[in-house]
Amino acid sequence: MMSVSPPRRGEDIEEEASPLGPVADGDESLCFSPRPSPSRGVAEGHPGHHGSEQSSHRLLAYSDALISIIATVMILPVCHTKIRADQELEESLQQLLSTKIAVYIMTFLIVTVAWASHIRLFQVIERIDDVLALLNLACMMLITFLPYTFSLMASFPDDTLGILSFCVCAIIIGLIQAVIVIYGFHRPYLLNAHICASEDQFSYKYQILKMILRAPALFLLAGILSFIYCPVAYAVLALVIFLPYITQCTQWCRNKIKGPKELQRVPFYSFHPNEPLSKERVEAFSDGVFAIVATLLILDICEDNVPEGKEVAEKFNGKLIEALSEYGPEFLAYFGSFVTVGLLWFVHHSLFLYITKSTRLMGLLNTLSLAFVGGLPLAFRLTHEFAANSRNELEAIQISCVIIFLASLFQFAIWAAALYNEKETLHHHIRYGGKEHALMFAKLSLYPSVAFVTFCLTYVLSKFSTEIFHLMQIIVPFAFVLLRIIVQIVLAILAWLFSRLKPRTSLLIEEEESVISVSEVAS
Amino acid sequence: MMSVSPPRRGEDIEEEASPLGPVADGDESLCFSPRPSPSRGVAEGHPGHHGSEQSSHRLLAYSDALISIIATVMILPVCHTKIRADQELEESLQQLLSTKIAVYIMTFLIVTVAWASHIRLFQVIERIDDVLALLNLACMMLITFLPYTFSLMASFPDDTLGILSFCVCAIIIGLIQAVIVIYGFHRPYLLNAHICASEDQFSYKYQILKMILRAPALFLLAGILSFIYCPVAYAVLALVIFLPYITQCTQWCRNKIKGPKELQRVPFYSFHPNEPLSKERVEAFSDGVFAIVATLLILDICEDNVPEGKEVAEKFNGKLIEALSEYGPEFLAYFGSFVTVGLLWFVHHSLFLYITKSTRLMGLLNTLSLAFVGGLPLAFRLTHEFAANSRNELEAIQISCVIIFLASLFQFAIWAAALYNEKETLHHHIRYGGKEHALMFAKLSLYPSVAFVTFCLTYVLSKFSTEIFHLMQIIVPFAFVLLRIIVQIVLAILAWLFSRLKPRTSLLIEEEESVISVSEVAS
Repeated sequence: MMSVSPPRRGEDIEEEASPLGPVADGDESLCFSPRPSPSRGVAEGHPGHHGSEQSSHRLLAYSDALISIIATVMILPVCHTKIRADQELEESLQQLLSTKIAVYIMTFLIVTVAWASHIRLFQVIERIDDVLALLNLACMMLITFLPYTFSLMASFPDDTLGILSFCVCAIIIGLIQAVIVIYGFHRPYLLNAHICASEDQFSYKYQILKMILRAPALFLLAGILSFIYCPVAYAVLALVIFLPYITQCTQWCRNKIKGPKELQRVPFYSFHPNEPLSKERVEAFSDGVFAIVATLLILDICEDNVPEGKEVAEKFNGKLIEALSEYGPEFLAYFGSFVTVGLLWFVHHSLFLYITKSTRLMGLLNTLSLAFVGGLPLAFRLTHEFAANSRNELEAIQISCVIIFLASLFQFAIWAAALYNEKETLHHHIRYGGKEHALMFAKLSLYPSVAFVTFCLTYVLSKFSTEIFHLMQIIVPFAFVLLRIIVQIVLAILAWLFSRLKPRTSLLIEEEESVISVSEVAS
Repeated sequence: MMSVSPPRRGEDIEEEASPLGPVADGDESLCFSPRPSPSRGVAEGHPGHHGSEQSSHRLLAYSDALISIIATVMILPVCHTKIRADQELEESLQQLLSTKIAVYIMTFLIVTVAWASHIRLFQVIERIDDVLALLNLACMMLITFLPYTFSLMASFPDDTLGILSFCVCAIIIGLIQAVIVIYGFHRPYLLNAHICASEDQFSYKYQILKMILRAPALFLLAGILSFIYCPVAYAVLALVIFLPYITQCTQWCRNKIKGPKELQRVPFYSFHPNEPLSKERVEAFSDGVFAIVATLLILDICEDNVPEGKEVAEKFNGKLIEALSEYGPEFLAYFGSFVTVGLLWFVHHSLFLYITKSTRLMGLLNTLSLAFVGGLPLAFRLTHEFAANSRNELEAIQISCVIIFLASLFQFAIWAAALYNEKETLHHHIRYGGKEHALMFAKLSLYPSVAFVTFCLTYVLSKFSTEIFHLMQIIVPFAFVLLRIIVQIVLAILAWLFSRLKPRTSLLIEEEESVISVSEVAS
């Protein structure tokens, strides 16, 4: 990754694949040589032996960045809802906020559905050329427009225009994806090696196109229905979004009753919870969300919190520092939210280091976790919008705790889902038992437990809730730094206790090891 | 990258590196085994044989995302400067705008300087552990705060507070980087394989620390001077930023006069234009900038352009479509800017596919190109802010053309810089001569020439400037789709002409090839 000597790595791959003439034997020659190195084509995407085709790595990274920004962006209208400091949360304001929050969560989920279908598509198409890159950009443009159509829908639920524009966007996205698939099957060297090598490409093509075009067909139906009776159209929309899960359920039930059917042949588009989901893309998408969330508050601060020269001169006798101290709580909110988001990213990063294969279920849990992470800047902003020690401030702090709790709990759930099938999904270092396992457990459970304790404390000692909350913000980063030491001390104590109860050599050895590591770390 | 079968690729690497006990022979055992696969550790970062250390890939991707967002964000205050549609650009407004634009460009450059030092740092430290990850997050937090301190400086140039806060941030960033280096040298398995294997680690450490701490020392000086006399402090600041270039120049001059000195021993921190700059990070940073720029306008649209229910009912008799048609030009600006940014990304992507090593000079040109890309949303927004056919509208369109021209021209310059040293920096497919070379030339010169032609046309036919501009926006994407065909036709014609003039077999063969490709593409 950080190569120092001139990075010529790609050429080696190229040299391997270049003698295309003589190797050409039958159908296989059309496919890209399957996996020349453990992580082929990730870093280097030099054109293969068909001249114009390239690795899709960077295209996908860019798409992930775009989609993650778009998914998170609808939190901004929620953040920017004006609340006066002394204002109790009135009913109308509460209603406005809850509408906007609902729009945010729904947009996040819909955009991630579009993202999941994008992942599936580019698991079939493994290499790209210029035409595919441009088609993909067109697709991205429409996906970035989805949040707007969705907020139109939320603001004017009875107007057909909102639902219609949403349906039109979704239909065009589906059609572009279909065109990409047809183009890919027309040039088989762009396809996934597995499909490319198969003899029955036509049935694959048919099956994938059927899956992709199912959604636009239903959106078309919803669009037509919206002219007749809007609520039915909304029902159809919901149907499209939950269709994979419904299909999965009915299939599962049918299998239970009739006995298992033969397996579906395409390994993607199966909508099975165990279907593989490109781990790199889950990471890239999460990175995008974490990055934009971490910077959302600084965007506001840069724009709004630079005082005007006139104001400083008149109000504060020209003393800039006094003018800035007015904004103090906002800086605190910024640092608090940056630290929390950063540490949640850190936990996510540690977890995914050890995950070898991510599944759809883990992707879903990750999406839910990220949706709550997206709410963090809002929550932190709210903590200082209200008067000190008011009921609203207390509520804002409690909401922050709940959001942190849920975001980190879903991260924990990803781990639980991975552990459920650990042989396939986890690196052997981290599997059940062992020190690294304990360390990961501690990392993942730190934020949920801290958030839970803070929440309980604010209930009991509601007078000091602000102080407790800020104390929590300061302590947690240090806890992470010391975590390795703490875990090893706890393990050593546990091992010592166990060895007292039933002295076994294996535990003694582990104890010794951990004691040595503690002294290593301490030195 | 898009692995379908359970991706266990990391384990192979792990298995290779695991037998740490028996292999331990002397100093080498402390280093990570150098480069087990062409692109090791990019996709998988499972812990190596020291238990806690990991590949730095994802940490760097996240840092790149954060830094690119922060670098681009200061365009927002420029975008949000309120301009009334009928208002001629008054002097005060012009002054405000130019201050804000200067802040944007300076922030962009300063943040990219911080980013370049971050790249250097993580070219020395190749693997990370939890402590380094957390230290890096702290560093990121301070970098994201730089734009704010910078806009304080711009708004209150005479107040010491702005320059002081900037210096404090910069000093702490420098100190954290020094701590990271010391920590890295304390655990040599985290270091770059080259340094780790060297016998003279101490002198490396000393040299790198000297380089890193030079900046904080100068910032400290600037901070102290700001209490005495602000302009001197600013001069010192400028010195810090241009220090690498000054050092480089003096060194170059000294070499010319006294004859070349012995080469510096650390391959990074040489500040030579040919110093390698991690290509992956340049790509990741560019992706981040392109992604945030492409979505900047939709952020605004989502927030501001959803009409309120009451307004629609009163003003437009409840007709949503009429209310939305008011926003028409803004949608056009959005699509225009998305398409332009997307296509510039596409050109960048095509170019970097063929670059095998990026240098500091190319990084600098890339930064300049990106700084202009960041200005695009502003330019496009301006094109519809003014009354139709006013002088301001014409100016806005011409500014847009200039920005597109410069952004794409600097991309072209990257290619020129790469061609200058093509054996080291370019993939052999694309080197001088050949079809792919011509295609790349066409791709890179399309935007500069279109922008130039549009600019000239708006001067000549100033009445139709808006129409010309929109026509350009529509034509360019199609030009990209057809580019391969156009280039091959042109090449075929050229080859035919040449073969008429002086018939040579090699050209005839090329002609045949290209004719075949044309028919392939056409079919």
